[in-house]
Amino acid sequence: IGSKLPDIGTTIFTVMSKLALDYNAINLSQGFPGFDTYPYLKDLVEEFINQGYNQYAPMSGVPELKSRIASKVLNLHDVEFDPEDEVTVVSGATEALYAAVTATVRRGDEVIILEPAYDSYAPAVRLNGGIPVFVPLNIPDFSVDWQKVKDAITEKTRLIMVNTPHNPCGYVWTQEDLDQLAEITRDKEIYFVSDEVYEHIVFDGRKHLPLLSHPELREKTFSCGSFGKTFHITGWKIGYCLAPKPLSVEFRKIHQFLTFSTSTPMQYALAEFLEDPSRYLFLDQFYQEKRDLFCNGLKQTAFRFTPTRGSFFQIVSYAHLSEERDYDLAVRMTKEIGVASIPVSVFYHDNKDHKLLRFCFAKGNDILEEALGKLQKLT
Amino acid sequence: IGSKLPDIGTTIFTVMSKLALDYNAINLSQGFPGFDTYPYLKDLVEEFINQGYNQYAPMSGVPELKSRIASKVLNLHDVEFDPEDEVTVVSGATEALYAAVTATVRRGDEVIILEPAYDSYAPAVRLNGGIPVFVPLNIPDFSVDWQKVKDAITEKTRLIMVNTPHNPCGYVWTQEDLDQLAEITRDKEIYFVSDEVYEHIVFDGRKHLPLLSHPELREKTFSCGSFGKTFHITGWKIGYCLAPKPLSVEFRKIHQFLTFSTSTPMQYALAEFLEDPSRYLFLDQFYQEKRDLFCNGLKQTAFRFTPTRGSFFQIVSYAHLSEERDYDLAVRMTKEIGVASIPVSVFYHDNKDHKLLRFCFAKGNDILEEALGKLQKLT
Ligand SMILES: CSCCC(=O)C(=O)O
Ligand SMILES: CSCCC(=O)C(=O)O
Repeated sequence: IGSKLPDIGTTIFTVMSKLALDYNAINLSQGFPGFDTYPYLKDLVEEFINQGYNQYAPMSGVPELKSRIASKVLNLHDVEFDPEDEVTVVSGATEALYAAVTATVRRGDEVIILEPAYDSYAPAVRLNGGIPVFVPLNIPDFSVDWQKVKDAITEKTRLIMVNTPHNPCGYVWTQEDLDQLAEITRDKEIYFVSDEVYEHIVFDGRKHLPLLSHPELREKTFSCGSFGKTFHITGWKIGYCLAPKPLSVEFRKIHQFLTFSTSTPMQYALAEFLEDPSRYLFLDQFYQEKRDLFCNGLKQTAFRFTPTRGSFFQIVSYAHLSEERDYDLAVRMTKEIGVASIPVSVFYHDNKDHKLLRFCFAKGNDILEEALGKLQKLT
Repeated sequence: IGSKLPDIGTTIFTVMSKLALDYNAINLSQGFPGFDTYPYLKDLVEEFINQGYNQYAPMSGVPELKSRIASKVLNLHDVEFDPEDEVTVVSGATEALYAAVTATVRRGDEVIILEPAYDSYAPAVRLNGGIPVFVPLNIPDFSVDWQKVKDAITEKTRLIMVNTPHNPCGYVWTQEDLDQLAEITRDKEIYFVSDEVYEHIVFDGRKHLPLLSHPELREKTFSCGSFGKTFHITGWKIGYCLAPKPLSVEFRKIHQFLTFSTSTPMQYALAEFLEDPSRYLFLDQFYQEKRDLFCNGLKQTAFRFTPTRGSFFQIVSYAHLSEERDYDLAVRMTKEIGVASIPVSVFYHDNKDHKLLRFCFAKGNDILEEALGKLQKLT
């Protein structure tokens, strides 16, 4: 059987998590919380399962959850979405991204991807016959070089993939970024798929600015979110997509045939849980402590870094220390020092090596302290 | 935004379920159980959630569940699959079907679909640039006309979609069917996607014969199953795909970017629940009672029918009664008689109307009795 994705091997997240297990290393590679979700949310799932909410949810999601998602966006960003027609609940943000790309990209369409980029964007584009056009983010701060994006736009550009707060680099888009994007795409039929799964994890008083908060961008944006990162339930796989009705119509046509619908009891539980906005509003404070703890500890190591602006990832540079490839160093550190990380080169289509590693600090403080102690051994 | 699926409107399942709700009719349209799942399975989910199994499952599924699925196939059909490399757990059989089609179908490939067919097959093929080639099943017994299938095969045929037990018609493949399929595809590079979600619901002493039970077919088959129909949990959305390693490798590359992984606590719960094979072995007896009850009642109505061989659907004909389009009759019956059904024409690409309706009898006996009473009013 010929492969439609010949270059795809085992995902780096699986590789590094397994290596961490095999070498009994602290796993700061794959991005998932090292702590559990809220007891009340667990109780709610139990309740709905016991009450018999175990058959198909409506294709686009249970109405109660769609309403709560729309309310969240209204409260936080003062932007209105019709819960019935413009909010769709799916099986994780990965499905939201894939469905949005599938809904828009036709054979030969170009899709701009800012690199480093999450590993599912380019395959989703390719599987739909699209052509990824890669534009590098600025080094070292990972901001967007708008001239480069503008230069990459052609007659064939159909879609731009956006990710803020950014994985793996933590860059958080500013109002200026939104305005620039609107400016260079004005009057063009270019859509946006915006991966905003770290929307509630931004630091140092910053504010997450979703694409949908910009009136011009809103009309052309598939806004993809997830409860996995927000409520420490990456294993439940519930995500969502907000988009204006004409886009949501096409998005749902795809979702219908990808997975049709998503866990009924968990959707009902999340709807109830979202009732109290404090449950997501204080997530940034929770993670700010961890980021500060981790960055303070990193100062005692040989790495160079700038504290991350958002997401639960911290990038460090070792360019001044060694010529070793980032992948090799990540493997060696797992085996010899006992800390697993992700080499950032895997997020470049050509595996460009900037001598950067990504650490996930969504772990218990004791684990972070222990990891930092080990990282000090690297010189 | 142009549509990649211009002909797709709101799914018939949503339309009819909503109509049933609006007119307070008994909903025998969309296929889902009208009763709840097992208390012990609910307890298991609760247990795993409480124990903190709430982060990402491995991409291909939790090992315990993959093992149990492989054991089930070994016990029932004496066919071996390597749980680590040949079993993948996904977000429902719909995802399994979409991923298998995406893994195999390239632009211009032809895919044979036997009609009537479940509504996701053709869109999945089209979205991947493939060309559906429709072959009608025999009327009135919905068996396969092997000469017609053979005639439909060309140099471009890449895939044949198989569905046994069949939705909507209930036909169950025989050994002769498997042999015929092997015969006409021998030495050709043609793959099979086999939708077998009703594998445990076959009647009158019949035995479900999966494609993977045929040594030649096994090598080229993506075998798609689901726990939704087997354990009355259509709303949990856990399915799986068994395929030889080279096929599973490609299948997983797609699954990785469609949804990445599937509900962790529910996977662990299902693994434990599968420990006792009697939990699925007696499903056919459970449904045999319902089928018999429903068919006995149908004899008092004006419909003509042959008792279904498998699945929880019963097809009836009203060709001798009226010229009305099946869609119109289904709507009218929902409004006037109070029983919702599915018009079979929606399962034909050209909406061919054979004057057939599909009823789902996966309902409580009292509901079935009540529905039968209402159906007697139609003359
Ligand atoms: C879906 S596994 C990867 C989790 C993640 O978002 C990351 O580590 O970047
Ligand atoms: C996914 S909703 C449709 C359920 C079903 O399999 C059917 O009714 O045919």
